[in-house]
Amino acid sequence: MSDIYSQNLERTPANYQPLTPLTLLERAASVYPSRIAIIYEGQKYSYSEFYIRCRKLASFLSINGIGRGDTVSVMLANTPSMLEAHYAVPMCGGVLHAINTRLDASAIAFQLDHAESKMLIADTSFSSIVSEATTTMTGKPIIIDYNDKELQHAYPQIGEYDYEEALQSGDEAFDWLMPKDEWDAISVNYTSGTTGTPKGVVYDHRGAYLLAQGNIVTASIKKHAVYLWTLPMFHCNGWCFPWSISVVGGIHVCLREVRAEAIWQLLNQHKVTHLCGAPIVMSTIIDAEEEVKQTLEEPVEFFTAAAPPPEKLLTDMHNAGFNVTHLYGLTEVYGPAVINDWHSEWSELPNASQATLKARQGVRYHALEGLDVFNSEKMEPVPRNGKTIGEVMFRGNIVMKGYLKNASATRDAMKDGWFHSGDLGVVYPDGYIQLKDRLKDIIISGGENISSIEIEEVLYKHSYVSAVAVVAAPHEKWGETPCAFVELKTGCRLSSSELREWCKQYLAGFKLPNLFVFGPIDKTSTGKVQKVQLRAKASEIAKGQSAK
Amino acid sequence: MSDIYSQNLERTPANYQPLTPLTLLERAASVYPSRIAIIYEGQKYSYSEFYIRCRKLASFLSINGIGRGDTVSVMLANTPSMLEAHYAVPMCGGVLHAINTRLDASAIAFQLDHAESKMLIADTSFSSIVSEATTTMTGKPIIIDYNDKELQHAYPQIGEYDYEEALQSGDEAFDWLMPKDEWDAISVNYTSGTTGTPKGVVYDHRGAYLLAQGNIVTASIKKHAVYLWTLPMFHCNGWCFPWSISVVGGIHVCLREVRAEAIWQLLNQHKVTHLCGAPIVMSTIIDAEEEVKQTLEEPVEFFTAAAPPPEKLLTDMHNAGFNVTHLYGLTEVYGPAVINDWHSEWSELPNASQATLKARQGVRYHALEGLDVFNSEKMEPVPRNGKTIGEVMFRGNIVMKGYLKNASATRDAMKDGWFHSGDLGVVYPDGYIQLKDRLKDIIISGGENISSIEIEEVLYKHSYVSAVAVVAAPHEKWGETPCAFVELKTGCRLSSSELREWCKQYLAGFKLPNLFVFGPIDKTSTGKVQKVQLRAKASEIAKGQSAK
Repeated sequence: MSDIYSQNLERTPANYQPLTPLTLLERAASVYPSRIAIIYEGQKYSYSEFYIRCRKLASFLSINGIGRGDTVSVMLANTPSMLEAHYAVPMCGGVLHAINTRLDASAIAFQLDHAESKMLIADTSFSSIVSEATTTMTGKPIIIDYNDKELQHAYPQIGEYDYEEALQSGDEAFDWLMPKDEWDAISVNYTSGTTGTPKGVVYDHRGAYLLAQGNIVTASIKKHAVYLWTLPMFHCNGWCFPWSISVVGGIHVCLREVRAEAIWQLLNQHKVTHLCGAPIVMSTIIDAEEEVKQTLEEPVEFFTAAAPPPEKLLTDMHNAGFNVTHLYGLTEVYGPAVINDWHSEWSELPNASQATLKARQGVRYHALEGLDVFNSEKMEPVPRNGKTIGEVMFRGNIVMKGYLKNASATRDAMKDGWFHSGDLGVVYPDGYIQLKDRLKDIIISGGENISSIEIEEVLYKHSYVSAVAVVAAPHEKWGETPCAFVELKTGCRLSSSELREWCKQYLAGFKLPNLFVFGPIDKTSTGKVQKVQLRAKASEIAKGQSAK
Repeated sequence: MSDIYSQNLERTPANYQPLTPLTLLERAASVYPSRIAIIYEGQKYSYSEFYIRCRKLASFLSINGIGRGDTVSVMLANTPSMLEAHYAVPMCGGVLHAINTRLDASAIAFQLDHAESKMLIADTSFSSIVSEATTTMTGKPIIIDYNDKELQHAYPQIGEYDYEEALQSGDEAFDWLMPKDEWDAISVNYTSGTTGTPKGVVYDHRGAYLLAQGNIVTASIKKHAVYLWTLPMFHCNGWCFPWSISVVGGIHVCLREVRAEAIWQLLNQHKVTHLCGAPIVMSTIIDAEEEVKQTLEEPVEFFTAAAPPPEKLLTDMHNAGFNVTHLYGLTEVYGPAVINDWHSEWSELPNASQATLKARQGVRYHALEGLDVFNSEKMEPVPRNGKTIGEVMFRGNIVMKGYLKNASATRDAMKDGWFHSGDLGVVYPDGYIQLKDRLKDIIISGGENISSIEIEEVLYKHSYVSAVAVVAAPHEKWGETPCAFVELKTGCRLSSSELREWCKQYLAGFKLPNLFVFGPIDKTSTGKVQKVQLRAKASEIAKGQSAK
């Protein structure tokens, strides 16, 4: 603008400050110093204590050489140390790298080397695998042992420092660093990598701040909410909830392991208001022994992602006192960026219709500026008819900075001004999107696109079925045909022909699975179905059949 | 950072978009198209209609020459057109200039010329004063008449266009402009100018977005809130609530005039959840005739600013079903930037203690990064003892860009990296601030600083007193002494000596007013006490006395 509004109205420290989630904790500690911030078994920390512990840890890290742009890795369960790392690491300018604790040693070693990690804080229960990883890797990060007092067993000490001693050696008045620029990196999260090498997804302070507030705004989370940690914090920085809860001065209820008994007990003991997790967490809650379940005094909000919640589970959760909201996102968009924003009038519909509506991924978070489904060749939005499949794309401030040390993958993912998710979906006339498949999971049979998810949904409707995965199997005539991997519930029996008859009720002939394979389904450490391995299996079986 | 995190991780349109409140309306219209956005008497607009109307108006403005950095002025009551202007003007790149409708013609002419206004949308009920202003001013803005259908009288048409016809001539698919940079100006609001020339306070898209969300986050405003417009939208853009309500897909209930009967009727008719205003609005509500008052089904949130709410008013409001939150801010910080963030345990205290706590201005909004009280010479924070007076200062993203065409005033206000508010206050040990006076209103008697507000609070405690204002009067011996202007309630009588005795119970001798003046108190068009004029009066009276 060359006008009156662009003269002598510059940014100054008085009117422009970097957006960062760090100021949210500083505010909470100032306004609610004596309110409880963290509960973990018998331990309780007030906001004042939480903030002081973070400053001490940041001070220790700083004294030990961590500065702007240095990676600090953590291999931690959902314990207070994990929350502290989310603030303390960026407080000294560092970049937090939270490792999926279910990975094997070589994957851990790869990440530590790739992120050029300078320090590693590890729960001693993981000492064995961490030792293995750090001896095989190239770099030599300083290791800090987190000895969790709540652990039942003693584990080997492998680090140079004890976490609590290190923290206590820090200065509680440490003058922590604001980011120089809100675009500075705050964390790196590696994709689980169902195909190829894991990629390091880099988040920045601006995006983390906006999603931290975005969770609060989009989900109407009230002051002093009580949040139960059933979602692993190593997963997209716990969808930014470690930062969100500071916005409302709420309580983090920590939880090492997702166990039904502990969840039910904590829900009532601490009057939990919110929790998050994949549908498997809901199943864990619902499938608990009856004597473990309790009556909830107030409705509890459950945010789920990763897969659409099945109708039966929704009904069971509703009856148990939970209000389930369906979210969708990817590591590349800080976790959730899309919400099934529920219209109150939909609650009047029959259960089946509600489940159908709730299975849709929905609309953009406020903090995401753009969400659409594109014909990716022409880069034109698909018609809003609920049918035409295109690629789901995101644009806005909660899209990652890019992939660490991978300029070409970053460029590919960000081309045409949109982040290309690789997920396939449709848009309904009301603008709500629904996923139909991963780009690489679509089955092309006789030139027709078949959504593996559509077939999976039909199989899930069968009451004997507990889990399914549908992939493409090679076929001489059709190119590909669907192959269904099926896990049955304990004590249930079904034949291929019975399942095929079941499918015929719902699916067009060309979409019917050609093969049914019964038995356990391969999953990654984060519980994602390993479709790459299943495709290999399907291919072998198909070849075997055609050779007969 | 010269590290791995600063290489090949640039901002692109995919991962960086300007923050602007405009995307909030676009989202609301997309997600809740059929939900009601605006109710005004018999008129109702859905979010889809609201958005379309804004795009049409923006299209009309664009066609008529409004582009980036052009000022569009409005002289409007709290009608739908005022809400539309808050989106449509920035949608074509323009800067919104909302004029205080209580100003006189010369003040309006000054603002229009100073802002170099290109267009003026004016409610026809203001035609007479607008005519007078536009004939005396130098520039010649295009005038658009807003003919409010709800007006009981016909008013002269003075414009070149009729608002509704102009709007309807626009293109509903207008491809509205995102700001080029989130630092671009979105509006200009003139200070009421109790001293000197009014200054044009410039807001930007980033700050407007952050406070729009900040209102929601800081005040825990839920989805589909119902907001009654008792606060004039020309006042700091209605504290950014025209944009906030889009965040939650809520309802704007418009209101031309603050009248008790209309307020009570609308509160129940539309199940209003939130409203804002100065304490005078609360008095209007509480002092209504008994037959006008109604029982509120749910507690209603009332946000008040401009003056601490007196204890009796708080008790009355509580009994009437309102929950009152005390906010504080200035035009220079987008309206409210400080909140008396209420601790639930305080509600257990006696009413008087609650009122004392509630009279404090409080703590920073989330969207404000810094708030403190400084010794402004040394630029050191005052001790947190609730006693040491210093200047209240702000820093962060909801501090204005600066004063329009006034580089020196901007520089002065922003020096040392903090916005200098000119308000004097103290900080309590818990970090909550309380105002003690305006810098220019402090009374210096015999070298001692006397807070005019402290004396006013004592006078307000007297049940016969309805309004007070204390200013400095010149005094030969002491330099200055306090002079109290007092309005008594209807039918009440008090003498100077009686009031002086009253004050002695609470105030040290040197703080006792030397003069009491009974009668109506001069106020500005926004209801602010005109201390400049009162000081002139006090000076004359003091001279008259000493001449005797």
